Amino acid sequence: MRIALLGGTGDIGEGLALRWAYDTNHEIVVGSREADRARTKAREYETELDSRGVETTIEGRVNEEAVEGADVVVLSVPAYHLADTIEAVADSLDDAVLVSPAVGMRREEGGMRYNPPSAGSVTALAVRAAPEGVPVVGAFHGLAAGRLANLDADLDADTLLVGDDGDAKGIVGDLANGIEGLRALDAGPVGNAAEVESLTPLLVDLAMHNDDLHDVVVKFD
Amino acid sequence: MRIALLGGTGDIGEGLALRWAYDTNHEIVVGSREADRARTKAREYETELDSRGVETTIEGRVNEEAVEGADVVVLSVPAYHLADTIEAVADSLDDAVLVSPAVGMRREEGGMRYNPPSAGSVTALAVRAAPEGVPVVGAFHGLAAGRLANLDADLDADTLLVGDDGDAKGIVGDLANGIEGLRALDAGPVGNAAEVESLTPLLVDLAMHNDDLHDVVVKFD
Repeated sequence: MRIALLGGTGDIGEGLALRWAYDTNHEIVVGSREADRARTKAREYETELDSRGVETTIEGRVNEEAVEGADVVVLSVPAYHLADTIEAVADSLDDAVLVSPAVGMRREEGGMRYNPPSAGSVTALAVRAAPEGVPVVGAFHGLAAGRLANLDADLDADTLLVGDDGDAKGIVGDLANGIEGLRALDAGPVGNAAEVESLTPLLVDLAMHNDDLHDVVVKFD
Repeated sequence: MRIALLGGTGDIGEGLALRWAYDTNHEIVVGSREADRARTKAREYETELDSRGVETTIEGRVNEEAVEGADVVVLSVPAYHLADTIEAVADSLDDAVLVSPAVGMRREEGGMRYNPPSAGSVTALAVRAAPEGVPVVGAFHGLAAGRLANLDADLDADTLLVGDDGDAKGIVGDLANGIEGLRALDAGPVGNAAEVESLTPLLVDLAMHNDDLHDVVVKFD
């Protein structure tokens, strides 16, 4: 698989790029709005992997080029950049599956609160912004960024998938399960995305209010 | 501690009554709108415990009497009965802490959705309905009823506490941690309750869409 990580220079993009490059044989392309930044981060990831004995090539490209030929495009950008980012790459998407890990949150007294866009969820917003026929899967929400990007850390986490296209959800589930310590669970259609995305502010709240929890992840049993 | 379980004849009330009676020395009172029904269920719980070598008395009383002298009152009733139930017992509450495990949900295509009351969350609704000075803690949401009521089953679950009164939250946290396999985590103030309550429909959705998950519980790490 060829995976493009748009916003792949940010926290969650970095962690997914490193984990896939370390645990699998997928081709990784780091995308950014600036080609230089994408290339610089791609070199950083290669250096980190090389220090662990993994020789691999990670491409760095401007978002519009990063998606070319990609089987899966992960939109690891803030929720407020999601629609713009999809629009910028729409003409180059080919047959890709779009993956949306972003969540809308606002900070309030005593915690973070879920703050969905008017579409009802960020995943639903991505569905609206996607070109016709391009499937969207919500996944990789709220993965503790520090733990994800630290290849010495056990992830031991579940990630919840929402989507209306079963084949696309299968592809993303396989990608998730390819990361050691990560398990994909099916949370149903896009209509269930608000409950899935609400988990992310909750994880922040639990880290805030419990001294023994940091970089919190969730597991279901 | 003396714990009154209003709606203690229902699924979640049954599980909490059995677990506290089995794992702790707290006094348990099962409350119901009908005294006969409360007494019948209390006898059933005693018989179940007796079959496991635990000789204990579980009282069964009409809700208004069940709360008398109770340190903690668990409102294990459906969300739409919550305000009525609090109103019915308000004059007899003494110095009790109210505990709200209820969640508002609606069934939609492909899953359950969180459906909060206009107060923003069921916990916030309980705060509004509670007499002045009576603290409310949201807790014990979404504990898989079958697993909770089956004393042979490992719970191995977290329960999330929300509340604005730290002392009350401490009391409920101790009660939760007294149940073997259950761990209380602090999710912050009542303002965070919607994110906590949203977990319950998500647990239902995960059981619906994943063949290997039944009676799903959640753990954070």
